[in-house]
Amino acid sequence: MTPHASGPLAGQPSTALLTDKYELTMIRAALADGTADRPCVFEVFARRLPPGRRYGVVGGTGRLLERLAEFRFSDAEIDVVADSLDDRTIDWLRNYRFTGDIDGYTEGELFFPGSPVLSIRGGFAECVVLETLVLSVLNHDSAIASAAARMTSASAGRPIIEMGSRRTHEEAAVAAARVSYLTGFQSTSNMEATRRHGVPSAGTSAHSFTLLHTGPDGPDEAAAIRSQVATLGVDTTLLVDTYDITAGVATAIEVAGTELGGVRIDSGDLGVMARQVRAQLDGLGAHNTRIVVSGDLDEYAIAALRAEPVDVYGVGTRLVTGSGAPTAGMVYKLVEVDGIPVAKRSAHKESLPGAKRAIRLHRRSGTAVEEVLLPLSATSPETPGLEQRDLAVPLVRSGDTVSGLPTLEQSRSFHSEVMVTLPWEGLALSQGDPAVNIRVVPPAGN
Amino acid sequence: MTPHASGPLAGQPSTALLTDKYELTMIRAALADGTADRPCVFEVFARRLPPGRRYGVVGGTGRLLERLAEFRFSDAEIDVVADSLDDRTIDWLRNYRFTGDIDGYTEGELFFPGSPVLSIRGGFAECVVLETLVLSVLNHDSAIASAAARMTSASAGRPIIEMGSRRTHEEAAVAAARVSYLTGFQSTSNMEATRRHGVPSAGTSAHSFTLLHTGPDGPDEAAAIRSQVATLGVDTTLLVDTYDITAGVATAIEVAGTELGGVRIDSGDLGVMARQVRAQLDGLGAHNTRIVVSGDLDEYAIAALRAEPVDVYGVGTRLVTGSGAPTAGMVYKLVEVDGIPVAKRSAHKESLPGAKRAIRLHRRSGTAVEEVLLPLSATSPETPGLEQRDLAVPLVRSGDTVSGLPTLEQSRSFHSEVMVTLPWEGLALSQGDPAVNIRVVPPAGN
Repeated sequence: MTPHASGPLAGQPSTALLTDKYELTMIRAALADGTADRPCVFEVFARRLPPGRRYGVVGGTGRLLERLAEFRFSDAEIDVVADSLDDRTIDWLRNYRFTGDIDGYTEGELFFPGSPVLSIRGGFAECVVLETLVLSVLNHDSAIASAAARMTSASAGRPIIEMGSRRTHEEAAVAAARVSYLTGFQSTSNMEATRRHGVPSAGTSAHSFTLLHTGPDGPDEAAAIRSQVATLGVDTTLLVDTYDITAGVATAIEVAGTELGGVRIDSGDLGVMARQVRAQLDGLGAHNTRIVVSGDLDEYAIAALRAEPVDVYGVGTRLVTGSGAPTAGMVYKLVEVDGIPVAKRSAHKESLPGAKRAIRLHRRSGTAVEEVLLPLSATSPETPGLEQRDLAVPLVRSGDTVSGLPTLEQSRSFHSEVMVTLPWEGLALSQGDPAVNIRVVPPAGN
Repeated sequence: MTPHASGPLAGQPSTALLTDKYELTMIRAALADGTADRPCVFEVFARRLPPGRRYGVVGGTGRLLERLAEFRFSDAEIDVVADSLDDRTIDWLRNYRFTGDIDGYTEGELFFPGSPVLSIRGGFAECVVLETLVLSVLNHDSAIASAAARMTSASAGRPIIEMGSRRTHEEAAVAAARVSYLTGFQSTSNMEATRRHGVPSAGTSAHSFTLLHTGPDGPDEAAAIRSQVATLGVDTTLLVDTYDITAGVATAIEVAGTELGGVRIDSGDLGVMARQVRAQLDGLGAHNTRIVVSGDLDEYAIAALRAEPVDVYGVGTRLVTGSGAPTAGMVYKLVEVDGIPVAKRSAHKESLPGAKRAIRLHRRSGTAVEEVLLPLSATSPETPGLEQRDLAVPLVRSGDTVSGLPTLEQSRSFHSEVMVTLPWEGLALSQGDPAVNIRVVPPAGN
């Protein structure tokens, strides 16, 4: 299965109105006062991680680059915005095409408070108009990726199926399936994620299918099971908790035989149920029948089930809502104008002025020990005994997406490698500080 | 400004893959065993409200009906799903068109735990395939509408601007803007919501515009303000907290004069700042200059600012993330097959069998006192002294959306009327029980 379409709105006119109005009114004023083309650097970063989280995962970069390519103002978009703009601004929008450069952390990379995960360089107007789209994609996808990575880590190698589409906006669902796969989930229930992003799909049946097999004499669970096994084969996964779970398992093995692929438990105390069902399956000789558990699982519940005979996790609500942190809190800040570092001084919203270069320092074992932010043009610092890794890679040059960017599969491998570099305390689920500290090297002379 | 396009994916092939795979495999099995066309009733409801919430607001109905009309399996969709299906199922999908009926609570209506907010009636297969799309739209939009309604209520008549697009998925942002307007927000920053749904837009400038006006000699806030006033007029709203807020206000009035439309404060202790800025503005003679506050506002922060001289609220992150409850927790359950009530018996996931009719009882003053669920065919109960209101209205008949459904503006008026019927304790922001109790009348003979 290879992905078919390049983006969610293939055939749709444009992504250009996924934009806050103030970006357009600022462009109008900047065109009028001659500042619209001043060379600027904007940076995207999160001021903090969600409470207690020890790392974040960059998600959405690949998807963002596709959406940026669709960012054009045609007549249909101009019609909507024209009444608050003047002719000069309208002409400018009509000819809009981003011509600058974008660098960013590789998708799947770890980030910490202050990490400049994306840098956008170009004229003020052409950069500022991308603010909302950039943040929407990165804030959503990174929030889900960050939660998903903790779940993957908690699962300790057992497969996880993403099944949360029904609990989030229908388009957010597709993006969530994509980044959960990026962090190591095995598959998704979402068919559009299979189409768009090539994520493997999974799914067999719901309680409604069992209930459908109800006649005047009452429920007939065996009929539902016979039907599913007849069409999907004995390797299918059967839901066994519609009525009585022990009776459900007995019927499942009676109908499908001991080579039944799996049973799914979606209710009750999943740990207790898994043990009980495992004993029952083993007693019936179904030693290879897998146990899939689902139902409000998050990273904590997954970890709590480590000692139980669970083979596969199904995760929904808590994944698509970022497990308590549905947005990554990233901001898009102007840090340099015409080579001059700038920053606002608002209380609690300070940012670091100046375009930055980010380097992560690793022990020879691979473990990350520190992230260093230094002025973009600075030479590499002396770090005896530590290896240095530049975190940003070129994504866009003169408005064009660079070639050879990683596929989703490649980003998945990259993420898996980078997770190994996280200091061991970073994998703890308990509340803690960021696992990697950020050190800022001020410009020379400061 | 009237909405231009009918839906988010105008021109896109189909919404049919915004679907969980198990719906397709169930259809395959049901077609094989002859149960695919059994007459079924599915109902959508939330088992509970988010912790402490006293009511929920139905959001997304109008948007859902548009997405359902785009639910078709063309070759492009069939390609993606074919490898797990047989020819019979593929043919069935190719000819798929929902032919059943849908009833639902009016968009903007209140709901409580167990309220059957949507009922879908038709053959099993044609109904079950809509499960994910229906839930995605209603769970997202109702979560945001429910949070937004509390913010509108807390604002006690002061206008709220929705500005959260950057903190959520770019398409979820458009839907969030739509339902926040539904519950009484004044406008949105999101231009696509203006295009698609006709929501009024708002926005003037960001801190980056002030920072852009930095030269070799340092920041020049006055230049930024002069530029904005020159292009957007003195009625514009100026950001005054980029550097020093007192200096910012002084410069704003010096440049724009005492008829300046507004100043926005986006940082610091908003209550303290609002008082200080109001005093400063009044001292300068700018008595009509409005104060707009923004920055991590939610319903609690809005309520806490009631006594402060705030004129307009800007709300972002907490709105688009449902103020702690980013999904409404609605489920899509088969409740009746061939006239036989059905329900699973899984622990903690019970549902009420049988197709239901929902009636809300009101005092003559209008206050809602109870919601009664009775069998669909039951006659109205005796409720002396109370007025009865059927909550469900026809939405789809024989697969076609009924004509004359409310526009967004009409739903906004409806919501405003229905909020008045909420018992007074329902408006409290403190944690509490649902404001309206649900009483279930079992079928005769039970």
